[in-house]
Amino acid sequence: MSSVRIGERAGEALRVLGAASPAAVDIFTGILTHGPLSRTDVAKATGLSQAAVTKAVAPMIAAGLIVDHDPAPRGGPRGRPANPIKVDPASLVVLGIKVNPGEVIGVATDLGARMLVSAHQPVGRSFDAVVEGVAEIAERLCALLGDRRERLAGIGVSVSGDVDSRNGLVRESALLGWTGEDLGGALTERLSVPVLIENDVRALTIAEHWFGEGVGTSSFAIITIGSGIGCGLHVNGEVVEGAFGVAGEIGHLPLTSERFVCTCGRRGCVEAVASTGAIVRAVAEAGGVRDGHPVATIAEAVALAHDGDPVAVEVFDRAGTVIGTAIATVANLTGPEIVLITGEAVSDYDLYDQRLRAAFEAHAFGAAGRCRIVLRPHAFEDWARGAAAAVLQGIVQQRYTAN
Amino acid sequence: MSSVRIGERAGEALRVLGAASPAAVDIFTGILTHGPLSRTDVAKATGLSQAAVTKAVAPMIAAGLIVDHDPAPRGGPRGRPANPIKVDPASLVVLGIKVNPGEVIGVATDLGARMLVSAHQPVGRSFDAVVEGVAEIAERLCALLGDRRERLAGIGVSVSGDVDSRNGLVRESALLGWTGEDLGGALTERLSVPVLIENDVRALTIAEHWFGEGVGTSSFAIITIGSGIGCGLHVNGEVVEGAFGVAGEIGHLPLTSERFVCTCGRRGCVEAVASTGAIVRAVAEAGGVRDGHPVATIAEAVALAHDGDPVAVEVFDRAGTVIGTAIATVANLTGPEIVLITGEAVSDYDLYDQRLRAAFEAHAFGAAGRCRIVLRPHAFEDWARGAAAAVLQGIVQQRYTAN
Repeated sequence: MSSVRIGERAGEALRVLGAASPAAVDIFTGILTHGPLSRTDVAKATGLSQAAVTKAVAPMIAAGLIVDHDPAPRGGPRGRPANPIKVDPASLVVLGIKVNPGEVIGVATDLGARMLVSAHQPVGRSFDAVVEGVAEIAERLCALLGDRRERLAGIGVSVSGDVDSRNGLVRESALLGWTGEDLGGALTERLSVPVLIENDVRALTIAEHWFGEGVGTSSFAIITIGSGIGCGLHVNGEVVEGAFGVAGEIGHLPLTSERFVCTCGRRGCVEAVASTGAIVRAVAEAGGVRDGHPVATIAEAVALAHDGDPVAVEVFDRAGTVIGTAIATVANLTGPEIVLITGEAVSDYDLYDQRLRAAFEAHAFGAAGRCRIVLRPHAFEDWARGAAAAVLQGIVQQRYTAN
Repeated sequence: MSSVRIGERAGEALRVLGAASPAAVDIFTGILTHGPLSRTDVAKATGLSQAAVTKAVAPMIAAGLIVDHDPAPRGGPRGRPANPIKVDPASLVVLGIKVNPGEVIGVATDLGARMLVSAHQPVGRSFDAVVEGVAEIAERLCALLGDRRERLAGIGVSVSGDVDSRNGLVRESALLGWTGEDLGGALTERLSVPVLIENDVRALTIAEHWFGEGVGTSSFAIITIGSGIGCGLHVNGEVVEGAFGVAGEIGHLPLTSERFVCTCGRRGCVEAVASTGAIVRAVAEAGGVRDGHPVATIAEAVALAHDGDPVAVEVFDRAGTVIGTAIATVANLTGPEIVLITGEAVSDYDLYDQRLRAAFEAHAFGAAGRCRIVLRPHAFEDWARGAAAAVLQGIVQQRYTAN
């Protein structure tokens, strides 16, 4: 029997969120993502009357979800009190867990997606071992939360691959070697708490849209570089999901020579030259040697390139060029306002920067080239925080119900 | 003084549509795009009560916009009358005009975007000449409409390029050689009737979404092949516009060899090998000869390929491959349910088909490959009909006001 359960002190807040009207959901989302707002500003932003706003937020205030921003209100510009209100981030807590091959990383965050505690642990490669590992880390996170576990409102888990979030299914994950696994069902049964399953890049995109650089932008893309090259797209106010669950597969755009074969079996994919695995292989095959043996890790390939080894530099140049070309492709097709680059390889971004920007500028079409490319430092916990953001969004948008 | 004016018999219908609540707009859109529906079905689809639906449609029925589908209602499945209602397509008429280099094509359609009359005429290349030509064809279309001109509700004009639809500006049109032209302002002044300006591919996408293959799909793309290669994307319920007005620029994705230089100046663009101009040039440069002279038109290049000339066949093969690769790129990034292929080159689609599908299958990633590729016969009036659909949508969604 699992010790993880929805917190007793989360109950009333969850009941209020679950019963909120569509307008009240909009209002809460606006206050949550944009920070302290006066009722007047909320009314303006949502097109509702101020009376309707007051009525909608009343149960949220009673449940502790919304509080006065400034307990001693000063006069507004015309002498009337402005009365800004804000979400109390401490009112709810969620868990977000990222499954990697051989490892799970978990965080607990507050309602503002701020990380409270984190943990990681090795797991076996089988599906059952992963289910067990996720359950164990959820229990550890709850223990680390102490009294705050009484606010626990939900659990999100993210994995790489083709995920059917609505039904909790992992349809296909090449990285984990899974096909058609009911991860949501297995975890919900193991933990006796509903578990939301989401694609990892989509989860990261939700985190940026609600709690990061994406707030207030009409559209943005997040590009992750590392052992895979991923892309989350946000267009017309929503994450692009794809009619068949596939979207943002920037790693498998055919943007390089057909002579490069990808791990997916296709030719010319971006990942075939720009994933960390492809970089290591290319440097080793071209004779790259570090400490007397062929380069075997990305750290060694990076060190060789930093030392100016022409073979290693050329491999990183090729990776930077194809990533920049891929970003131009995203810009020409969907026209994002901002492109965020993140992922574990961001720490070595200096090796990509010049060729990436040159390729982007060479191929971005007209005004599409005005999109800002923003580098974002990456922590491994970010993926887990994405899963937390996904379940927070699921709670607010009434797609995730904790009981 | 122009003889074009908003029709006297359109006034009340336009007033009702302009004053409709957001819920009433949704209801009208549902009935317009999905055809006859019972009030019960409308209530179900919109989440409103049946009483709210009845109240919302009452003024629309009074204004003649909505009528009983079946004047002698039979019993529904439980013996109660089903009372389906539908939009009366004859209640309003709009004009749609497409500007091409040296030519304007215009149609008048009913409220269901069904073509009623059409016309085309040559125009000069200058901006002023185009304004004059559009005004003249609008007058001709009104004359052709006869009594139905009394239902005229709006005018839409579409052009290729970067269009700021909200402000009626053509920011950049390489095809027309325009930069920063206030086409909406000039036409509205010339005709004394507001004119909606829209990008041509976006207008075509609106037509498919409301009145064509796109109805009821979660997302679709429309690919136009011809003198340019364009793409309209429909994602999350809306046309993708791009934060800077650029999106769907499939013609300028860098998907072929850098040795091919595009008319835009960039290298490796799809259009550099697949536009009709590029095909003609490539066949001629490779020694393609027809009737004793180097190939000079797309019709001659097509004839040569149909005769099995290896040079011409190879050029079309290359075009088909890059278009198929571009469609896979769109599928991998945005995951459409359907891809419609249209445009003037569709009439010679047999020359593209095999390589196009092979390239799509080679590069589509996982479930993204399940998107249906549908060929759509193309008439030149389709572009003009797109402009008509854009203004119909503008009227219903209250972005276009006729007075």
